[in-house]
Amino acid sequence: MDFTKTKTELGLLIGEKKVIQKKDGTMDDALFDSYGTDRTKVYPPNYQILVFPETTDDVASIVSYAYKNGISIVPSGGRTGYAGGAVAKNDEIVISLNKMNQVLDFDPFLGTLHIQAGMITKNLHKEAEERGFYFPVDFAATGSSHIGGNIATNAGGVRVVRYGLIRDWVLGLTVVTGKGEVFRFNGEILKNNTGYDLKHLFIGSEGTLGIITEAVVKLTKPPKDIRVIFLAVPEYKNILEIFRETHNFDLPLLAFEFLTDYCLDKVKEHLGVPDPFQAPSKYYVLMEFEVSGESDEEKLYSILESITEKELITDGSIAQNSRQNETFWKYREGISESLSLAYTVHKNDISLPLRNMEAFLDEMTTLLTNKYQGFSIALFGHIGDGNLHLNIVKPKELSDADFFQQCKQVDPDMFQLIQKFKGSISAEHGIGLLKKDYLGFSRSASELDTMRAIKLAFDPKGILNPGKVL
Amino acid sequence: MDFTKTKTELGLLIGEKKVIQKKDGTMDDALFDSYGTDRTKVYPPNYQILVFPETTDDVASIVSYAYKNGISIVPSGGRTGYAGGAVAKNDEIVISLNKMNQVLDFDPFLGTLHIQAGMITKNLHKEAEERGFYFPVDFAATGSSHIGGNIATNAGGVRVVRYGLIRDWVLGLTVVTGKGEVFRFNGEILKNNTGYDLKHLFIGSEGTLGIITEAVVKLTKPPKDIRVIFLAVPEYKNILEIFRETHNFDLPLLAFEFLTDYCLDKVKEHLGVPDPFQAPSKYYVLMEFEVSGESDEEKLYSILESITEKELITDGSIAQNSRQNETFWKYREGISESLSLAYTVHKNDISLPLRNMEAFLDEMTTLLTNKYQGFSIALFGHIGDGNLHLNIVKPKELSDADFFQQCKQVDPDMFQLIQKFKGSISAEHGIGLLKKDYLGFSRSASELDTMRAIKLAFDPKGILNPGKVL
Repeated sequence: MDFTKTKTELGLLIGEKKVIQKKDGTMDDALFDSYGTDRTKVYPPNYQILVFPETTDDVASIVSYAYKNGISIVPSGGRTGYAGGAVAKNDEIVISLNKMNQVLDFDPFLGTLHIQAGMITKNLHKEAEERGFYFPVDFAATGSSHIGGNIATNAGGVRVVRYGLIRDWVLGLTVVTGKGEVFRFNGEILKNNTGYDLKHLFIGSEGTLGIITEAVVKLTKPPKDIRVIFLAVPEYKNILEIFRETHNFDLPLLAFEFLTDYCLDKVKEHLGVPDPFQAPSKYYVLMEFEVSGESDEEKLYSILESITEKELITDGSIAQNSRQNETFWKYREGISESLSLAYTVHKNDISLPLRNMEAFLDEMTTLLTNKYQGFSIALFGHIGDGNLHLNIVKPKELSDADFFQQCKQVDPDMFQLIQKFKGSISAEHGIGLLKKDYLGFSRSASELDTMRAIKLAFDPKGILNPGKVL
Repeated sequence: MDFTKTKTELGLLIGEKKVIQKKDGTMDDALFDSYGTDRTKVYPPNYQILVFPETTDDVASIVSYAYKNGISIVPSGGRTGYAGGAVAKNDEIVISLNKMNQVLDFDPFLGTLHIQAGMITKNLHKEAEERGFYFPVDFAATGSSHIGGNIATNAGGVRVVRYGLIRDWVLGLTVVTGKGEVFRFNGEILKNNTGYDLKHLFIGSEGTLGIITEAVVKLTKPPKDIRVIFLAVPEYKNILEIFRETHNFDLPLLAFEFLTDYCLDKVKEHLGVPDPFQAPSKYYVLMEFEVSGESDEEKLYSILESITEKELITDGSIAQNSRQNETFWKYREGISESLSLAYTVHKNDISLPLRNMEAFLDEMTTLLTNKYQGFSIALFGHIGDGNLHLNIVKPKELSDADFFQQCKQVDPDMFQLIQKFKGSISAEHGIGLLKKDYLGFSRSASELDTMRAIKLAFDPKGILNPGKVL
């Protein structure tokens, strides 16, 4: 392929300043490469042309050109993914949405923001706040991730029990299909029953059906005040019972997270923080509530009292202020870092029906004990959503290479168990390149055929993010 | 077509008691016909074979048979639609879901019910209530409508400002495609990012992509107590301001409805109820809030005080109890009946951005005044959702035939205005047969092409509800 010709022709279409060829040397090589990868780090990027469109029309021009010339494309957002969905390793054109970060419109009646897809999630939080609103999708990577990437991977986060996934907050979407056509779905109205809702196909499609260039997101009211309750729970079935009780609690539940004693120990080790409870426990649960006023304070105590009386917990503590909220959250949010800095881990982001989780965990533990000597499980996550981060920790005596080699055998064994217990092999992270070979554990052969047919309808030449998902 | 042969062969597949041929005379003709139509009454039904499957497998057998033999199918739910989506007029096999009305599972942790699609919506409300939960999608037809039909048309109702559309409450879906394949989408887990979300294509697809046979619906907590505020509003822009204020109100808003003085007069005439206010007003707004306890009562007064001080209303009244709630609601819910019993009306169910609505109404009024002498507009609806019921009332001197003839000219004129102001030609009722010719006012030619390709992927022989939507 003649990359210099491609560069020149794209430059004529959208302006030469928006097109960079690697060999030009106008951008540092490492930086250039970083636009063609994500956080998986498993797949080395390999590409020559990087473009920075500024409008939907720019993107349409680029994709039309690529369509005409049969050149593949990889859309590049905040590159915080964990599935290789944004990796360019076969000389694709990389379209970075970095410069598409503007607010295009605000509807104060409906409470919506129309923004370009390259806006960093944290900035969307700010834009909403400045207008007296709140955008509730929040997670660790919001300082880097783009709203377009969040939508393309149907992001979740820590408050899904209250606010749902980002899918629930997308009112309108502008996409450029694989033919370079612009589709504008909805955006200004709540109700529109006029044929198939194509918008939802793009949410979670990981850039394989079209490039998301703009979105209209719904906003809501910020939570008034927030208070965390931290619990020591002796048995798994008690976690289920406590979660069941939340339906009767008289305060809005914002988050329901859990961790095992193994995870707590690692956080204590790494952060040097004290044990939050007098006696150790097998499980810990962190519940976050919205509160306002003194009567709600009383409700927090009655919740704690109620689950104590039912002997569901051995200990429990209510944060007295926002600083103590943060202290409690550290035990949950410090886990990933505590593990990855001191140990070699194999991460999994899975989802299971709550009621099947204990049986799954039993069989999973048996599997590891029998087949993979010395492997430990660090288990934590958004248990209220049925979403587990199941990290397998390498035994000290094993080399990294041997460990990851063995994990390649663990994965299909585990996915089979997940399938048996009606779970999903990817709760939040998506499929990308990393889980493509295992998609059949979550979707039937007929569904996969149908997905391919749908892909063809939007992207007849298969130039959009090829090799990902399907 | 040899209907007797079809009847016999279907009987062998699913049991002969589940198959009825019209000429058998085992069912009253009028009743038989009623299974092949809906509330539009515009399209006379014409079909010979009616089946009552009891399971998803039954439906799969029927559709597989139809696919093999190239016979078309119309799914039949509660038949409360207003767009002709359930009409069988070309000797299709009618599949009634009437006997598929069972609860299949309940997950008390997640708070979900797995039900068959033929369950009457009202019964789902009861099933939820018996388990201490609440299913919030509610509207006039819930005593007859099926949950499957609700999903196939993405039903809304009166509390969309609070609870959203039924799309937001469908966690899992079982469908039978046009090839007779069974697809089971999700259902037990909240998070599942494994490829395209095909489930959402079926929601609002009006039976053209597959037959919905089962659903897993999410449940929530019931509202504690409910209180209505009824307002007299002098100008349209004030309605907008009041709605904008609701974002700051300290109570959850359940409904935000409106009506014009014309509608109020008709309700007063028809129901013989007194004027709720001392002086007439051009517009009326009904706001419904969730309340609990005395401090919330005070909040109701402070809301009323706040909009009074801002001179947004000329009068306003807070219901003192649930009986008074109902009294206030009568002014809104009595409109349809008051109009249809005393007048000839042409109904429209449209949706517009709130901020464009006044300009649309101005142009719409001008259009009617200039081109259609004596036509009146009765305007009311879920204004908080941007959803208007725009009923055109026949002038006394015009014959029904002439009126409906002229309305056929009004429609495209109006749809053009709706398109101009970025609205939708069908907010809730769907497309069916009735609005099929006008779908281009809400969707682009490329979108329609893509929808046809998607239809082909699920229903390659085009046997599912042919002639509807596309």
